Amino acid sequence: MSSSLKRVTLLGSTGSIGTQALDVLRAQPGRFAVTALSAQSNAELLVAQAREFRPAAVVIGDEGKYPEVKSALAGQPETEVLTGAAALADVAGREDADIVLTAMVGYAGLLPTVRAIRAGKDIALANKETLVVAGQLITELVKQHGVRLLPVDSEHSAIFQCLVGEERNPIEKIILTASGGPFRGRSRAELAQVTKAQALKHPNWDMGAKITIDSASLMNKGLEVIEAKWLFGLQNDQIDVVVHPQSIIHSLVQFQDGSLKAQLGLPDMKLPIQYALGYPQRLANEFPRFSFLDYPQLTFEPADTSTFRNLALAFEAMRQAGNAPCVLNAANEVAVAAFLREKIGFLQMSEVVETTLARVSYLAAPTLDDYVQTDAETRRIAQELVRL
Amino acid sequence: MSSSLKRVTLLGSTGSIGTQALDVLRAQPGRFAVTALSAQSNAELLVAQAREFRPAAVVIGDEGKYPEVKSALAGQPETEVLTGAAALADVAGREDADIVLTAMVGYAGLLPTVRAIRAGKDIALANKETLVVAGQLITELVKQHGVRLLPVDSEHSAIFQCLVGEERNPIEKIILTASGGPFRGRSRAELAQVTKAQALKHPNWDMGAKITIDSASLMNKGLEVIEAKWLFGLQNDQIDVVVHPQSIIHSLVQFQDGSLKAQLGLPDMKLPIQYALGYPQRLANEFPRFSFLDYPQLTFEPADTSTFRNLALAFEAMRQAGNAPCVLNAANEVAVAAFLREKIGFLQMSEVVETTLARVSYLAAPTLDDYVQTDAETRRIAQELVRL
Repeated sequence: MSSSLKRVTLLGSTGSIGTQALDVLRAQPGRFAVTALSAQSNAELLVAQAREFRPAAVVIGDEGKYPEVKSALAGQPETEVLTGAAALADVAGREDADIVLTAMVGYAGLLPTVRAIRAGKDIALANKETLVVAGQLITELVKQHGVRLLPVDSEHSAIFQCLVGEERNPIEKIILTASGGPFRGRSRAELAQVTKAQALKHPNWDMGAKITIDSASLMNKGLEVIEAKWLFGLQNDQIDVVVHPQSIIHSLVQFQDGSLKAQLGLPDMKLPIQYALGYPQRLANEFPRFSFLDYPQLTFEPADTSTFRNLALAFEAMRQAGNAPCVLNAANEVAVAAFLREKIGFLQMSEVVETTLARVSYLAAPTLDDYVQTDAETRRIAQELVRL
Repeated sequence: MSSSLKRVTLLGSTGSIGTQALDVLRAQPGRFAVTALSAQSNAELLVAQAREFRPAAVVIGDEGKYPEVKSALAGQPETEVLTGAAALADVAGREDADIVLTAMVGYAGLLPTVRAIRAGKDIALANKETLVVAGQLITELVKQHGVRLLPVDSEHSAIFQCLVGEERNPIEKIILTASGGPFRGRSRAELAQVTKAQALKHPNWDMGAKITIDSASLMNKGLEVIEAKWLFGLQNDQIDVVVHPQSIIHSLVQFQDGSLKAQLGLPDMKLPIQYALGYPQRLANEFPRFSFLDYPQLTFEPADTSTFRNLALAFEAMRQAGNAPCVLNAANEVAVAAFLREKIGFLQMSEVVETTLARVSYLAAPTLDDYVQTDAETRRIAQELVRL
């Protein structure tokens, strides 16, 4: 049995994707082993996960919490306890893992993911920002090291599933579905008034705070558009977005014969997580099943990019290419954090992004270092804007 | 170029599927050659097709029309003109074809299809009755001769497309979509009054008379359920039907991980025809494209099997197995023909099927000869019923 175990490193194990990934592994005894776990700051949960899954290493990002984790796991000598960014990157590239699930939030996912790819690990990509920031560089690395980039986002997992067995058949376009978020149909005047609490209530998906705000502002869909471009090797005009409030059709591919394939199911991240970890095998499970009797109507409408500016800005950054998507992402991370601290209003988030995009120096062909510097410069500029 | 030509024999070339298949071939110059054409009685169109596509052979089923076809093609010596059932079977097995599209109507498709399989030809199966009547025998022959059975029905093409690349992944169930036909929502009292002209008006699909009536009575969906069982190797309880009036989602597969895949598109038979003939390649084309803007709502409802008895009878015949589906099909052919001659009413069609199913002797493991005899016995009994 042990020879067929797939060994998983899970970066960001205490977040929404991380805990659901461990639920998936727990429900498939004998198929997976956990090599390493990492968390930014939730020491208590990281310790509990380490006690249950007995990884070879855990990394706590927040160095102030290292003593707590270290002493809690003192009686578990097989688990090495580490802290800091360098340790995280080391763990991402550990020899004894087959696949690395990248479930950290935001730009922080980039460098560990690069390290894991260079170490020849397959990547279960839950950190879309990695491809948004440095899509060309990452896809070249993936090719160079012959690893698999398996999407965990439900939309990209849907497209990936639809492309299985279609390798010879050119894609005409893809259609990413979007729930439209909690504010679908609202005017800009109404959006100016929405609160953090309202923005954190997603109608269909239970997710972390950052992605929930991004879903409410449609920036999440914008980031997914750029992610899709790189994952599936698309031209900018091959990506459409349609709003589908029920979140049942997770996305679609249209081939050059006009035929469309879609993947459907209940909105539950466990399925795409399991698909990425189990690929190419679909593992039997006890997840609730979809029934059309519960969903007698599926509806579709165009995305309103004049109200939800972020989606338009993301398409624009994708067309600009170079470091523009990196700027988009970093400015958005600053803006969302400021919104969550109630420093700026909902509509100001896209203002921060748009102004920052205009101010950061454009680079047509950035290196990895250029991305690191673009990210830092963007954050400085965006931080000033949210302080005004 | 000529070495990569796929050589197609087209049985039933003057019907709805046949003419659309020739439209598909015409739009793909340099990819296909037509080896042989056959028609039951439309001599004029068969001659025109033969003049355009220059096949090596044509068969006119109706022997009375042989002289007309023969003389019309006298100036085209490369095209042999034949007539009768034996000639049709010979043509189905011709050495110089790569694939045989079986687009004849009804039971008449069985023997030529058997002949084509025995000759090692891939089959583009538009004649669902072949699998309904003799599914076990046909699937065994297909395996024995190592040929491909490529479905042309839009629902089965959808499922086939969704299964590409998923060979290792068990199917949990399939969901066949049904438009519900022109009489969806009607009561039995209302159905008792419907006319032939009303039944011939399908809301979405433009098809031949027999299949249009079968769609109105839901027998078409019943036949498709049985066809799907054999095409995809399913247990009886793995096949669901859902009514989807817009006919955009052509059918779905649910895998053992709970994930569903669907194939979608405008209701146009050219796409599944082209897919079967071009498989495994999806050929670029100019067919109109689907847009969610034109279909902002897709709706779903359970099939009403107490009003539309035929669907329940088909499930019952499938469960009985043996020669029961053969009886179902032959009785239905007689009933539909009687309805089209306005000898019986709409609801009497399922009465004829149900009574005949109860009267014909049951055979658990029929041979090909047994099917031929069951078909003949069923037609005798059903003919008596429609004369009453």
